Formats: sequence, C-alpha cells, structure tokens
Amino acid sequence: MASERVWTAALVVIGDEILSGRTQDKNVAQVALWLNQQGIRLAEVRVVPDIVERIGEAVNALRVQYDYLFTTGGIGPTHDDITVDAIAAAFGVPVIEHPEARAILEDYYRDRPGGLTDARLRMARTPQGAELIVNPYSGAPGVKMGNVYILAGVPHIAASMLDALTGKLEGGRPVVSVTVGARAAESDVADLLRETETAHPGVAIGSYPFFKDGRYGANFVIRSVDGELAKATGDDLSARLREAGFEPVEGGI
Amino acid sequence: MASERVWTAALVVIGDEILSGRTQDKNVAQVALWLNQQGIRLAEVRVVPDIVERIGEAVNALRVQYDYLFTTGGIGPTHDDITVDAIAAAFGVPVIEHPEARAILEDYYRDRPGGLTDARLRMARTPQGAELIVNPYSGAPGVKMGNVYILAGVPHIAASMLDALTGKLEGGRPVVSVTVGARAAESDVADLLRETETAHPGVAIGSYPFFKDGRYGANFVIRSVDGELAKATGDDLSARLREAGFEPVEGGI
Repeated sequence: MASERVWTAALVVIGDEILSGRTQDKNVAQVALWLNQQGIRLAEVRVVPDIVERIGEAVNALRVQYDYLFTTGGIGPTHDDITVDAIAAAFGVPVIEHPEARAILEDYYRDRPGGLTDARLRMARTPQGAELIVNPYSGAPGVKMGNVYILAGVPHIAASMLDALTGKLEGGRPVVSVTVGARAAESDVADLLRETETAHPGVAIGSYPFFKDGRYGANFVIRSVDGELAKATGDDLSARLREAGFEPVEGGI
Repeated sequence: MASERVWTAALVVIGDEILSGRTQDKNVAQVALWLNQQGIRLAEVRVVPDIVERIGEAVNALRVQYDYLFTTGGIGPTHDDITVDAIAAAFGVPVIEHPEARAILEDYYRDRPGGLTDARLRMARTPQGAELIVNPYSGAPGVKMGNVYILAGVPHIAASMLDALTGKLEGGRPVVSVTVGARAAESDVADLLRETETAHPGVAIGSYPFFKDGRYGANFVIRSVDGELAKATGDDLSARLREAGFEPVEGGI
C-alpha cells in the first residue's frame, strides 16, 4: 500500500503582546481547526517578537520545511506592524505598493472619516510578487507570498481571511477525532490505552486528564485520517474501559 | 552607560492537542507573566507535536540560544508522555528512575487507591543528572535538566511548579507596562504613536486595535524596564492623544 501524502503547515504568531502574556492567543486553535478541515496538518507553531530579523528567521526556517506557512499579526497601519517588511527581506525582494491593494483601500475608505491616510496606505504594501488574500471584514487585505499566507492578528479578521481561503489549498484527508471520556485517573488506564493504540495501527491516542467537580477524569482522543478506523478504535476502547470497571462516555466529558 | 543584561527564556509547548486545535493553550500566557515577574523575558515559543525527534530538535535549538528553556506537557503516566525520553535523548544521557522522585511518589500514593502502579512510577523517570521541581499540587515532580525546566501541561499543575520556582532563577529588572486606551482607529494615531516612541528612547509602544460596543478603539501598551520612563511616556502619550482630539483612558479600555 502506497503511503498517503500528508500535507503540513506551520504557523508563526508575530507579537510582543503574546510573549508578554498581555494577550491570550486565539489564532493557534482557529488556524489549526481550519487547516484540518482543508486536510492539512498543523505541525509546528512559533511565537516570535516584533523584530524583523526574528520574524525572518522563523519564516525562512519553516517555509521550506512545510507545505504551507501561515503568519498572524503585524499587518496593520502602525509603526509596530513590520510583518510585510520582514517577509520581503526573508524572500530577498523589495516592498512595493500593491496596485490592487491600493484600489481596495481607496474603495474602502472613500466614504469613511479621514479617508485613505498615509498610515492606512501602509496596508497596501506587500513584498514584490505577492498576491492578495481577501478581507471581507475590514478592507485591508492579507498577503500570499509563495507558500506563505500572511494574515491579520485580530482573531475575527484572521477568521474572515481563512474563510476567503477555504477550499483553495491543496490538502489530503482531514484527521478525524473520536473522543471517549471516563472518570478514571489516567494512570489507572495507562496500560489499557497503550494496548488499544497498539491493536489499531493507523491511530494515535492522546490522554488528557482533568480534575472536575471534585473528581479525577480523563478524555482519550483517538485520531486518524481513517474515520471508520477511528470509530472502531473508539468502540474498542469503550469496551476495554467498561471491562476495567470504568464507564466510558462517548464524545468525552 | 553599560547596557543592561537582559535575561531571556524560551518555551516549548509539547502537545498534539494544541496543534490539533482541540485544546486552547493556557501555558504561554502564564509562563510569560511569571517570567516577567522574575525579570526574565519570554523571547520565543514553539509548539511541537508528541514526537521525540521534534521535541529534541526544539529543545536543543533553544536551550543554547536563551538563558532558560521551559517546556510544558508530556510528563504524565501514559504512553503519549514522552517529554523526559525526548529531553534525555537531546542531552545524550540515559533515562533513570530518580530515587528522590520515587520516594515522593511512594509517599503520595501510599494511602491512595491503587497505590504506586508501574504507570505512576513512570513519573519518577528523569534524564540522568536532573534535579526535581516540587509539585505541591499532585505529587509527580517537574524536572530541571541543565537550564531546561520541564513542567506539567495541565495549567494549574504547571502554575504550582512555577510557584515552587519563584525567586530561584537569576533575572534582571521586570518589564513594566503602562497602557493607555482611546476610542480611535489606530490608523488615525499611527504618526502620533511613532513620534511618541521616538521621543522616549528605551520604550517600545505596541498598538492593539479592537472593535467593541459598535465602535473602534485601540490600546497602546508602553513597555520598558524603567518604570519611571514608562510612566512619563504614558503621560506624554495621553497629552498627545488629547491634543489630537481623542480622550485617553489610562489603564486601557
């Protein structure tokens, strides 16, 4: 059997506000879920500060290692928005004013107070050779440069750019997850879990413990690109848990 | 003036559950905030899957690049908990059963149902040469190997390990943040922000836009290790915002 092509992506989250702890990142989870729907696996994330060289290092390391690279953050109109400059430098190309982006911004700001100021026009800058990613939400577009997709940092704007990209990236089969929960300390079912995983080649089982309502428990997440296999493994795991004296909860706790 | 020593750290978040989007990470922000209290700057984060080689690559790249490296996740009792094995391999040392960790677990599980099973005893495994990090919450200790601090993935357990480390790491001055908010589109104050930053060497100003209650706004975060300077810059920024017709909100919106 030929092994199946797995499509992979990495994400670079750009922002001092994440590294300072001021802002709780919300883009990793939403990019991960969206990628999986496209049949692409998020394989690595890096969070880097607002420093041109550090952004460039991460981008150049990851864009050759994975099929796709996404970035979030640093494409607004202010002085700390340096993502476009950093990625142009990483590709060794100049920054240009993208005519189509300028047209979008002229249109967007035509009837808005203040109009298209120099600061707003910064958002028409792209690396030379880039294409645009539509931003249905707030005008200023994202940027596609080679296999690098440059998205906004504000989560709902990033989400609208992902919407615009839906179905446009080549991918494989999405990973299907089946979750089974139990009110068990995970250390009490560790052998059972390992045996279940070994019995079903092609699945990975993750164990995620919690402490809720004064009791221990854990959710066991079975992942596979083969949905039938994931389902069958879930049924087998439920049977094994029941046999060991733990009531399985399909869908998790 | 001699430039001030800046202490830096990186964090490796280990876990398929973060990369799949199933779990929203909470450790980046709490590690970042705690590090800043210790006078250490979080300079990079990587999220990697539960794969020994990938964990090892990240650990070896980052432990030489920064003063400290933290990891979260993968130190429980189940088959997918491979952090200790990966870090031992990264250091080129064997995994041993740490006598002190075994004693802690024997004590912790003495009166608990099931006792110290083989699965639980896995949590006494460390790279050879490691020290322990006390876990006041649930027994199984964290691990310190060289400048690498191996913490649990469950956020409140990671937090209790950070508590145990408070005041024990050498650092410099914490970064002080002063936040000023305004009901302004950030593109309308972009010039003003850049000028304010330029006028106060030693500060960095970040601009974080939002859309709330049907109106645009942004918070401007001034960061410096010099608290007086951050405060003075905040006052100056407030004055400039007021002059430009925007009412500043100290502390942010």
